[in-house]
Amino acid sequence: MLQQAKVFGWHITVGDFSEAAAIERVGKSSAGRAIRFDINDDQGSRTAIVSADVIISLMPAHYHIVVARYCLLLRKHLLTASYVSEEMASLHDEARLNDLLFMNECGLDPGIDHMSAMHVIDRIKSRKGRLVSFESFTGGLISQETDPQNPWRYKFTWNPRNLVIAGQATARFLLDGEFKYIPYQQLFQRTTNVTVEGIEYEGYANRDSLKYLNTYGLTGIKTMLRGTLRNKGFCSAWNILVQLGCCDDQVMMEGVSQLTHKGFMDSFLDFHPHWSVSEKIVSKFNLTPSGEEITRLSWSGLFSDELVGLESGTPAQVLEHILSKKWKLAPGEKDFIVMWHRFVFEKDGKQKEIQAYLTATGKNEIDTAMSRTVGLPLGIVASLLMQGKINSRGVVIPVMAEVYGPVLIALKKLGIGLQEQEM
Amino acid sequence: MLQQAKVFGWHITVGDFSEAAAIERVGKSSAGRAIRFDINDDQGSRTAIVSADVIISLMPAHYHIVVARYCLLLRKHLLTASYVSEEMASLHDEARLNDLLFMNECGLDPGIDHMSAMHVIDRIKSRKGRLVSFESFTGGLISQETDPQNPWRYKFTWNPRNLVIAGQATARFLLDGEFKYIPYQQLFQRTTNVTVEGIEYEGYANRDSLKYLNTYGLTGIKTMLRGTLRNKGFCSAWNILVQLGCCDDQVMMEGVSQLTHKGFMDSFLDFHPHWSVSEKIVSKFNLTPSGEEITRLSWSGLFSDELVGLESGTPAQVLEHILSKKWKLAPGEKDFIVMWHRFVFEKDGKQKEIQAYLTATGKNEIDTAMSRTVGLPLGIVASLLMQGKINSRGVVIPVMAEVYGPVLIALKKLGIGLQEQEM
Repeated sequence: MLQQAKVFGWHITVGDFSEAAAIERVGKSSAGRAIRFDINDDQGSRTAIVSADVIISLMPAHYHIVVARYCLLLRKHLLTASYVSEEMASLHDEARLNDLLFMNECGLDPGIDHMSAMHVIDRIKSRKGRLVSFESFTGGLISQETDPQNPWRYKFTWNPRNLVIAGQATARFLLDGEFKYIPYQQLFQRTTNVTVEGIEYEGYANRDSLKYLNTYGLTGIKTMLRGTLRNKGFCSAWNILVQLGCCDDQVMMEGVSQLTHKGFMDSFLDFHPHWSVSEKIVSKFNLTPSGEEITRLSWSGLFSDELVGLESGTPAQVLEHILSKKWKLAPGEKDFIVMWHRFVFEKDGKQKEIQAYLTATGKNEIDTAMSRTVGLPLGIVASLLMQGKINSRGVVIPVMAEVYGPVLIALKKLGIGLQEQEM
Repeated sequence: MLQQAKVFGWHITVGDFSEAAAIERVGKSSAGRAIRFDINDDQGSRTAIVSADVIISLMPAHYHIVVARYCLLLRKHLLTASYVSEEMASLHDEARLNDLLFMNECGLDPGIDHMSAMHVIDRIKSRKGRLVSFESFTGGLISQETDPQNPWRYKFTWNPRNLVIAGQATARFLLDGEFKYIPYQQLFQRTTNVTVEGIEYEGYANRDSLKYLNTYGLTGIKTMLRGTLRNKGFCSAWNILVQLGCCDDQVMMEGVSQLTHKGFMDSFLDFHPHWSVSEKIVSKFNLTPSGEEITRLSWSGLFSDELVGLESGTPAQVLEHILSKKWKLAPGEKDFIVMWHRFVFEKDGKQKEIQAYLTATGKNEIDTAMSRTVGLPLGIVASLLMQGKINSRGVVIPVMAEVYGPVLIALKKLGIGLQEQEM
């Protein structure tokens, strides 16, 4: 954004609750200005928003609607990388009447997945192909050289809380013409294998694939499944935590200040005076004592006598705190993004298949692939919008050619491009 | 209530959204008056409530708080058989300042369980015993002669919805000095055996046993567990429905109007073109093809081609609708209530145990044991209150001797009494 601003003569204001963080983001650029921004300060928020043409909100998702209301009031365009909430969707008509673009789901997933999928789907349609099946999976993982001892092949590269409570709503999707539902208790057991660049991943279903049937224009399709990728073995170990109730975010735990990692695990297990926590888990889930699941749980310190170090919390909050001790990127460590689509379509009486995939590796623990792939689409759309190249208005997601076309081209120039294979 | 009203010269007003239902309740009694009552009609609600001294709310639980606010405004006592909600609890000080009794949890469970447990607990304390463990289970089932073919040994005798979504919050309890948590996905697998009058039942943990530690005055106790009883085999079959996601109440299903019972089940199962729904379940859960679980699911018509008969709904709503076809009490059929407590205490250096239990059989499908055991405690408390025999005020539950003492005596006279055994 700062580079583009110099080219076009724009001004970038970076607002953060921590002014120091905003100053760091702006760096030495003469095109940027750093301010302290507090969404709960009405006058300050108005002053910051009224002075801009386009607002990019990267705040926690539940604040977007607050920003959106200011944007309506002050007639400003708004861009976010988050899912369209019901409240946000309800602003569609008002935004359109005010000639405003409220573009959401414009990051990696959701974001680049929508754009790269629609790019292929529209091409299949223009070639008179009939789409039969669409599957799309994305994962935010770690690169192969990062933390080689880590058996999960995973670290937190986005909001840790979202990982811990992931999948707690029943997933809905379409499979071979039938509506299918996977509840939380099955999610990490019913995985799909996905191979990208010779590496096999496991994918689990995202919350609601069906809501994109209309958005993508896919009426009549037989299979529609969106999901999340993890490295092999992650899901069966994570499933143990899910089954035990360690990811529950509804009830408060008692006596958390005295709780050890091991004690946390034990509070979800039956009483057996002579069994260790890992023995109880091995017995309950019929595991191999030194098998993959126990190895992963043990590596995460879940059988240790270390104190959790929280005063109170839900199981999900306690688990997040324990996992954070091992799952933070160390200086120099790199994250890794993988995205994969499969399109099956009929053309001239034959069934054909296109696979498209993207991989991206971070530079270090700060300049991650996650931050680039979430942030760059937002910056590119902001730039296109400022140049008058986007005519869409209202509450939308980036599924239209006037958006995905130039954004995918710009991303490719920045080294973020999908590979395609037709079979 | 109508009988007592004649003795004491009281007047009973029965209000119902259906005036006909109210008229039926009052029958030919000269002490009663039937009115149409609509809680959403402000003026009508005020008029009905202002004319009474004591209000008994038997409405769906979420309306109690609305009634409670009228009761505060108009200075009326309030009795309910429902759990104290946070909103209700917040009225405690105001109710007490206005010299009002807001008595909740005054039915069967919660209700008679609290009263009969406190009766024993206070006696143990008065004998200088130290309570070590308290377990309490209640079940609303069917009598042995009712529907002998029904392998579940269960029919709906209270709100069917509450059965279908039962247990969806993680259960919290105390076991041998440790706080324990059982999430929904484990609840129907981690059952406890309870034997009453020679019949073995299975019990699963209720939502939050810990909140009664203070209310019962049980600080220092090692085990505290409240739960629900079912006939043997119920839980392992119900667990299949839980694991598949059939009880989920969060997502809406698609195409419900065309859905058959079998199709409903299949929407939670993987795609296998040549397998029947029951074969898929047998394989997934490693069951015996003609075993107990499949027998129960099959008896409930869950593998049939019958249309569900709803236009839309969540899985829980669809499942409730299917189960209701077989789980309604037929004319003349009787329900059955079983309650069981176990108290372990130390006295004079020795460990002792008291078990107390209650069973009750309904007269027919209308005059059920459930309606008697829920309704009579409310009526008795109303009568005591009118006679000036209850001095407690504020938002309370019936754990005090001035309430449980006379209520248990009155219940015993009505044929509802607990048996006790000291071991």
